[in-house]
Amino acid sequence: MISSGPLKLQDRLEPILALLQKQEIVESLTHRQKGPALPLLEQLVHRQHEAELQRKLRVLEPADLGHLLEMLPAAKRLLVWSHVEEQQAAETLLELNENALRSLFADTAPARLKAILGHLDADNLADIADLVETSILAEVKAGLETQELHWLENTLTYDDDTVGSLMSRDSLVLSGDLTVDEAIVHIRLLGELPEQTDKIFVIGAQRILEGGVPLTSLLLHKGSTHLRAIMDRNLVKFAPQDEAKDAAYAFERYDLICAPVVDERLRVIGRLTVETIMDFVRERNEELELAKQGLSLEADLFGPVWSGAQARWLWLAVNLVTAFCATRFIALFAESIETLVALSALMPIVASIGGNAGQQTAALMIRSLGQDQLRGENLLIALRKELGVSLINGCIWGAVLGVVAAALYQNIGLGGVMMAAIMLNLLVAAIAGIVTPMWVHKLGRDPAMGTSVILTFITDSMGFFMFLGLATAFLI
Amino acid sequence: MISSGPLKLQDRLEPILALLQKQEIVESLTHRQKGPALPLLEQLVHRQHEAELQRKLRVLEPADLGHLLEMLPAAKRLLVWSHVEEQQAAETLLELNENALRSLFADTAPARLKAILGHLDADNLADIADLVETSILAEVKAGLETQELHWLENTLTYDDDTVGSLMSRDSLVLSGDLTVDEAIVHIRLLGELPEQTDKIFVIGAQRILEGGVPLTSLLLHKGSTHLRAIMDRNLVKFAPQDEAKDAAYAFERYDLICAPVVDERLRVIGRLTVETIMDFVRERNEELELAKQGLSLEADLFGPVWSGAQARWLWLAVNLVTAFCATRFIALFAESIETLVALSALMPIVASIGGNAGQQTAALMIRSLGQDQLRGENLLIALRKELGVSLINGCIWGAVLGVVAAALYQNIGLGGVMMAAIMLNLLVAAIAGIVTPMWVHKLGRDPAMGTSVILTFITDSMGFFMFLGLATAFLI
Repeated sequence: MISSGPLKLQDRLEPILALLQKQEIVESLTHRQKGPALPLLEQLVHRQHEAELQRKLRVLEPADLGHLLEMLPAAKRLLVWSHVEEQQAAETLLELNENALRSLFADTAPARLKAILGHLDADNLADIADLVETSILAEVKAGLETQELHWLENTLTYDDDTVGSLMSRDSLVLSGDLTVDEAIVHIRLLGELPEQTDKIFVIGAQRILEGGVPLTSLLLHKGSTHLRAIMDRNLVKFAPQDEAKDAAYAFERYDLICAPVVDERLRVIGRLTVETIMDFVRERNEELELAKQGLSLEADLFGPVWSGAQARWLWLAVNLVTAFCATRFIALFAESIETLVALSALMPIVASIGGNAGQQTAALMIRSLGQDQLRGENLLIALRKELGVSLINGCIWGAVLGVVAAALYQNIGLGGVMMAAIMLNLLVAAIAGIVTPMWVHKLGRDPAMGTSVILTFITDSMGFFMFLGLATAFLI
Repeated sequence: MISSGPLKLQDRLEPILALLQKQEIVESLTHRQKGPALPLLEQLVHRQHEAELQRKLRVLEPADLGHLLEMLPAAKRLLVWSHVEEQQAAETLLELNENALRSLFADTAPARLKAILGHLDADNLADIADLVETSILAEVKAGLETQELHWLENTLTYDDDTVGSLMSRDSLVLSGDLTVDEAIVHIRLLGELPEQTDKIFVIGAQRILEGGVPLTSLLLHKGSTHLRAIMDRNLVKFAPQDEAKDAAYAFERYDLICAPVVDERLRVIGRLTVETIMDFVRERNEELELAKQGLSLEADLFGPVWSGAQARWLWLAVNLVTAFCATRFIALFAESIETLVALSALMPIVASIGGNAGQQTAALMIRSLGQDQLRGENLLIALRKELGVSLINGCIWGAVLGVVAAALYQNIGLGGVMMAAIMLNLLVAAIAGIVTPMWVHKLGRDPAMGTSVILTFITDSMGFFMFLGLATAFLI
């Protein structure tokens, strides 16, 4: 990216960060409330700093300002926030993550917060409404027009992660009876079009959607042509209850810029844009990454300690219970370990290689499940393939570690048991790596999230059990 | 998604899958080559099946046909592929993942493959050229016009994951001297615009980029206005060497539909579209997920066993070495384990809770690193926070497991050691969870990939060492 400064956003924010790094400036800026009491010279210095900060902030795109706020520690975040004017603050709210929003909402005076939120339309308000305190939200709502209010309350009824919760209100909807020239006059009257509009949604009687006309068609066709004559009747459209995830796939597959959302009678009630879809995809990916460690999007590296600790309990507890259960297999063979203590140092290796191989198989399964590629016969092909792979890897790594163990402890039998246990645990890992994600998926859960705990439990338990079991049978 | 059939693609492909499920139809279709020798009746049946399959395939969007091909096992994939006509086959190639492409390229007769590839322009050919056999590619290239050929060879010089490798050739570039009316005439002459075009790139002398005019502006302004007068001079533009990842962030932040790619003299050399960016983002996410298990995008659940085994060696080897090293700490304390065998069943729990807590911290760090939120003072805030969290969780889970261990083995000292070891390992996990991703990031690697092995090694080693060390000091 060349024109709007360097591609790395970081470099673009550098001047502001440098300003905030100078302690005396920060102090001068934060002492604003004491203003009148300050000596004249200090007042002047303070005004100068304030003007400099405001000038630098004013030219930032909302997205960039949002990024700056997110990366600042709480005190400086508030300092910057207090110097942003309301309109820009409102646009910036839409770019912030939930944690930053929560902290800003908590620390902004109700009057200023109301004023800022007053700059948002129903559409944008809907995106952040669930984070706003009820009493403030009620006052802001009171300032909306009836239609907007109705739309807002309707939107808030849709579940997160549905098309309804992502749709926006602004769409360019015209009757199919209009000619191209009339449509152009209509657009000129509007003065500007909603962002990310590449087509007109064409409606008939009772606002029922009939098709779409790309804006470029207006340029390509004669002025007297009716929209109905040039519209594409095969428009991809969504219902508000559709899952946002499926809509994202459709946007990607069919290279959509925007698409209408319709009710059960095919009346246009909103619009999805590729911008919203991209934000949804990014947020969903982040959410999945955190969910794999039992964390939610709200988890924050900079938030309060106590809630941070609580956020992690459940996950640690689940993992502790499974780890505890897996190690009960070790306790079963306590006598064998007492007799041949080398077993205690080797058993975690057997468990660990099983875990790693199982996670590899599971990662491939999860990708294929995500791409919807697994049906009856494919599953068998995959299982056969993974068993083959684990047999080869079992032979190789089993042999290597068998030799290492035999040499290290001068015990050939121990080497043999090590080898056999590794081979068996890799077979277990292949089967568990195929079956576990499949099963989690069938239960309607995301296999990327649930699989790892179960898989680790299986490969750990079986690793301990088979290695110590074989050792007890053949060596003790 | 309502009009183009059910939202779930799966349901839309069902009729074809059902057709392919009937064994006698598949047999009739695959015996095409024997055609002339078949009795008349069978020939008729065969033609009927063939026509039915072709009819069903012809109406599929390339993206949907691509999905169908990807989910079919190899034999049926080829059967379907052989019934797709060349133009549609060419468009479908662009929608396939690398594995499917490799398998189809390997099994398509060279003559047909050349014919299919002949339907692609330089742009699309560039996307898949690296998978096409050199001799075939040379022949296909010979069919391109000089300009297209030049563009293709130029594009292939850019690294993967740069803007240059993602850009396309088709952009709507007009001189700033044109009026709105002249621009409209020009567009009408073109007949159609490149997909995902929301703006004209306006150039001056020597094709140097001056700005952009949204297509909607053509509708909103008077016909006699010059493009230069209404263009946006602050156009976001990219250099071909820019990282695709950074371009993706820019598309997301500034809600772009398309953006020009320029050379060092600001001459327009190509275009990036949001469609390409979305594909890039999806593929990059998939790649990261697999890379975390040491796998590449080429890894395939259905591919050959031998290459599947090889693809996993390195990762298993790395993990085996670290597991082996970590367990050497156990071997240090062999005598203690012989004396108090309960230690062997408890030590994996200490290691495991450390691992889980460390991964939680690392997941938050990796997210913040990805969002570029970590600078000097933030790092300290995060470290303090995570140490606080681990202290709380260490007290709670340490106490719980200490009591369980003491009760289970009727040994209060053992409970105390368990508790202390868990507390200490959680502190180690917090520090390692902060420092490791930071360090991997500083080395220029993706922390999402390298962190987990290192972290597991640290929490395992320290878990074993501290638990067995404390036990040896206080209990033995």
